[in-house]
Amino acid sequence: MINGHRDVSARTRKLVEEIVVREGYVRPGSIVAKGVVRRGTMVELIINEVDNAWAAEILGGVERVLREHGAQVVLTAVHSTREPDDDWLDLMVRRGSRGVILVYSDLTSSQRAALSSRSVPFVVVDPVGSPVSDVHTVTATNWHGGLAATQHLLSLGHRRIGVIGGPENSPCSNARIAGYRSALRLAGVATDSALVRHGDFGYEQGRLQTDALLDLPVPPTAIFAANDLQALGAYEALRDRRLHIPEDISVVGFDDVPFAAWTSPPLTTVKQPLRRMGVLAAQTLVCLMRGEQVESPRTRMATNLVVRGSTSVAKSASRAEGA
Amino acid sequence: MINGHRDVSARTRKLVEEIVVREGYVRPGSIVAKGVVRRGTMVELIINEVDNAWAAEILGGVERVLREHGAQVVLTAVHSTREPDDDWLDLMVRRGSRGVILVYSDLTSSQRAALSSRSVPFVVVDPVGSPVSDVHTVTATNWHGGLAATQHLLSLGHRRIGVIGGPENSPCSNARIAGYRSALRLAGVATDSALVRHGDFGYEQGRLQTDALLDLPVPPTAIFAANDLQALGAYEALRDRRLHIPEDISVVGFDDVPFAAWTSPPLTTVKQPLRRMGVLAAQTLVCLMRGEQVESPRTRMATNLVVRGSTSVAKSASRAEGA
Repeated sequence: MINGHRDVSARTRKLVEEIVVREGYVRPGSIVAKGVVRRGTMVELIINEVDNAWAAEILGGVERVLREHGAQVVLTAVHSTREPDDDWLDLMVRRGSRGVILVYSDLTSSQRAALSSRSVPFVVVDPVGSPVSDVHTVTATNWHGGLAATQHLLSLGHRRIGVIGGPENSPCSNARIAGYRSALRLAGVATDSALVRHGDFGYEQGRLQTDALLDLPVPPTAIFAANDLQALGAYEALRDRRLHIPEDISVVGFDDVPFAAWTSPPLTTVKQPLRRMGVLAAQTLVCLMRGEQVESPRTRMATNLVVRGSTSVAKSASRAEGA
Repeated sequence: MINGHRDVSARTRKLVEEIVVREGYVRPGSIVAKGVVRRGTMVELIINEVDNAWAAEILGGVERVLREHGAQVVLTAVHSTREPDDDWLDLMVRRGSRGVILVYSDLTSSQRAALSSRSVPFVVVDPVGSPVSDVHTVTATNWHGGLAATQHLLSLGHRRIGVIGGPENSPCSNARIAGYRSALRLAGVATDSALVRHGDFGYEQGRLQTDALLDLPVPPTAIFAANDLQALGAYEALRDRRLHIPEDISVVGFDDVPFAAWTSPPLTTVKQPLRRMGVLAAQTLVCLMRGEQVESPRTRMATNLVVRGSTSVAKSASRAEGA
């Protein structure tokens, strides 16, 4: 499909291609800002948190591009409030900021309208609100990533697969869970709503939701955590119960932040190109700040499964093979 | 000593206490900024990199305090140049920034003089340049951390201990290596300059310098990496040679970033309170911006050794005990 892999059924390929056409997939690197903006131009970066590996990667990409263009990042972390404070708009106008990048955060509709009326462009990485048609967004192929993670587990014989999403209203999390559901449907495996849990993308919720999955009358043989930090929380919950990964239970994450390769066992996960997403968002913003046209307002960057040591053949499947 | 631990010899205690007195150790939390600065006040944060776990922790602490005070972070990453560009001062004056936090970065002497003449205060976390007497700095007890890491390895019977520092001109790295040397001297173990290597605090240099140590005619039985990322590079180099941690060789890191607990094996490391260092730097700056007195210009925050799975009894020592 997107990467031209051959190990994808024709049916899946068609399904993915339809979605890619619908969502407007753009090959990375197709938008390159060439000119310069005035040195010292201020750009607002509004991000949910600054102190985790996911944020660090995106921040690294954004900062690199803006620095190359002589622009300056003004940083606002919104934490659980999702939107900047009421007076943010006044303050950013007073400081003369010329553009805005939102990362997993949102603006109120009046803030959006005020930016539009002042011709201050903004670009959103991983939107949290409802999609707005004319807003420039950068996300990963989350649905496809959820599909790939789940198909990997299905190919190992797992049939009872738990999933731990982010918040229930998170579009990127919901797309990953939709991919999970599609994979089960394509494989003819019935879905069980008890296996679908929601966390907050944090370590602690990964631990708690894994506990809830393990307490089910028939617990899963594999868990797909919708981000790496929750997968690490799952590791902790499994360790507490003396369950071994991957012998007793398989775990797949999402993100492929640097630590994913260093965990014990190294985490099988879906890589999303976080740094390149930050780069593309900043390049898009620079284009918009210079009044240039940007081809596709909605960009999805490819994800790909990275198989490491946290997944293996399901116990039941290996017993069946042995029988 | 600082934490009142009893398992420290009287001689070491005296040595540490002398240094603490000399350097002006301040108990964390002794500086608390209570009032408010004007909302939207801009503060420049100049940091070497934004995209690693170490930076994310400090950034998280700084951001929290400045947000509480209604101040806004303007972010500049200087990367290998160490100092912001020549026009940074003009631009920050034009934007009306009222304070500066430097994290493992520096200003030119003319930039420092210009800030002083404009009464713009600045606080330095982990200075990279030569110490300047009237500058407010926040660091960890790096010397003590290097001492504790090395004494831990010595207590396990290691006598040939390699160390991988940061850049040769890095004060915090040099303090850690000085602690290492002091521990050897206190234990009556001769130092060998071939065992002291310098990297750049990056993963790749951790790998390369470990290779160099293992290629010595008599390689070390333990490695003290002066930061966790280099320790992870050491893990990779050891894995490449089919050496097991800690059975074949022990590894100690420095920082205790979140991933240190998740590595395989979990990393024994020296914890420095990175987030609280960011908090204290921002609190100090807020005090200075309000014209308040800050007791001690140079603050060292306590480090402590966290023993996990990457260190064990030296092979030679266990053989000797068995004989």
